[in-house]
Amino acid sequence: MSAKERIGFIGTGIMGEPMARNLLKAGYDLCVFNRSREKLQGLLAAGAREGRSPTDVARQSDVVITIVTDTPDVDQVLFGTQGDDDGVASGAAAGTVVIDMSTIAPEATRRFAARLRQRGIDMLDAPVSGGDVGARQGTLTIMVGGEAEVVQRCLPILRVLGSRITHVGPSGAGQTVKLCNQILCAVNLVAVCEALAVAKQAGLDLATFLHVVTGGAANSWSLEHLGPKIAAGDLQPGFMVRLMQKDLAIALQAAKELRVPLPGTALAQQLLRGVEALEGQKLGTQAMILTFEKLGNFQMQEPPR
Amino acid sequence: MSAKERIGFIGTGIMGEPMARNLLKAGYDLCVFNRSREKLQGLLAAGAREGRSPTDVARQSDVVITIVTDTPDVDQVLFGTQGDDDGVASGAAAGTVVIDMSTIAPEATRRFAARLRQRGIDMLDAPVSGGDVGARQGTLTIMVGGEAEVVQRCLPILRVLGSRITHVGPSGAGQTVKLCNQILCAVNLVAVCEALAVAKQAGLDLATFLHVVTGGAANSWSLEHLGPKIAAGDLQPGFMVRLMQKDLAIALQAAKELRVPLPGTALAQQLLRGVEALEGQKLGTQAMILTFEKLGNFQMQEPPR
Repeated sequence: MSAKERIGFIGTGIMGEPMARNLLKAGYDLCVFNRSREKLQGLLAAGAREGRSPTDVARQSDVVITIVTDTPDVDQVLFGTQGDDDGVASGAAAGTVVIDMSTIAPEATRRFAARLRQRGIDMLDAPVSGGDVGARQGTLTIMVGGEAEVVQRCLPILRVLGSRITHVGPSGAGQTVKLCNQILCAVNLVAVCEALAVAKQAGLDLATFLHVVTGGAANSWSLEHLGPKIAAGDLQPGFMVRLMQKDLAIALQAAKELRVPLPGTALAQQLLRGVEALEGQKLGTQAMILTFEKLGNFQMQEPPR
Repeated sequence: MSAKERIGFIGTGIMGEPMARNLLKAGYDLCVFNRSREKLQGLLAAGAREGRSPTDVARQSDVVITIVTDTPDVDQVLFGTQGDDDGVASGAAAGTVVIDMSTIAPEATRRFAARLRQRGIDMLDAPVSGGDVGARQGTLTIMVGGEAEVVQRCLPILRVLGSRITHVGPSGAGQTVKLCNQILCAVNLVAVCEALAVAKQAGLDLATFLHVVTGGAANSWSLEHLGPKIAAGDLQPGFMVRLMQKDLAIALQAAKELRVPLPGTALAQQLLRGVEALEGQKLGTQAMILTFEKLGNFQMQEPPR
């Protein structure tokens, strides 16, 4: 492998696009593919080449990065559409590394990795947190599962994309850590909504309230960052309800396989279901407060007159 | 009122004792009372005088601080035992200030304050967080409800006891903020237990796991401080299950009066009920993990051989 690997990049959405851009800026040769071709234009203008299919991308790459939405999307990118042989696996030479940065099921990840291994292809699961801001700034947290030697080899690439990169265990471990991360975010958000609902209905000044409770043992990232948004009625994403629901479904399935009951996570999922019932799929996760407003028949913000 | 008020101090338990000691060190004249007299000995040796009853304490004080366990205890200290006229109200001259630093019901607090007001006695609710460490170091967070003028007058005393003192609103508001603080702590703890249960059962290295998830949007004070204890099997208090259950019962009652449904808080309460079933009332709140161990039929720590 040469000093600068040729990188294939599949999935140029809100996260993938700025990540691919950072790789171009770092001087990597980039071949890109996305299901919707219009999302490629910015990257092609910035110097990326376009692949005709995942297979075509893989043929021209030493390392293929995938960042798509869900488990079936990764399946299709790696192993092709039903009946069509257009996946990464068909084009990749032995020795290629696949880095899947999507958030998908740990068990499926292990299956995909084993299938690729049979063709001499190594796979890392490397899901990220840090949002589109972290993607743009190259400051993502990256949780990596896979063999230590392969992780080592890919570190220069991962360091372009993230600032906190941790090898957390074998294949699938990256995904498991990411799911636990989402469990924490979702249940912490239940805490924030319940506390703010009581504070609001008790007539407290919410800014003073948040100042006090963020100062001690009650604090969380969610309270600090989403608490003020909820108090101000700002439900713009951050991180969308739709994607959190996808992640919680995967987490609950993974926990089912491990036979770990997760009543708090299930509650968070159901409270976000209430937001879906209000067509709030594309709102930020802090829109969970809408369910509490319905349940408690109140509003955090008086409606504008 | 003279430059240094004479202070009465009622309730010299794990929190009250070190707080009273800090007032003595700051040069205040202190008259102390506690139901169990043996808990007074250290303070008497350090220069405090002993009051024979709450009434007797109030007679010798310009400001009376109370810090006892629950709403009925405050009721009794202020207004006397059934049939006996031995409460603070009987001994306090008009112009006395009562600072109640217990965690009790906001609605009862407002009732107590109104009753005292009729006798010309001012009352602040000033519950604290920060634990026995904060009490010893004088670094408690103090959430104060009451009239601004009275808060102002008591600030020099409160500053001896705490480092973050916030006037959060009228009578009862301090208690409401404290209850919301406890809601946040309890529900954040559910998040920590669920994430660690999955991480453990998935075979992750828990130290690496905690290192990663404390670094981003999943973080909370509970994750940082109780996560490592749970991973290490350390269930010593910090803050006892018994006291958290008292606080959650008050929070759920206050929320009932406000008609705010709190499904996450109720879940936390029931998960701690599981710890009570194991006689874990005096363990730290992180013992909530014991309920998950029972539910999921696993152990965070292998039992010693």
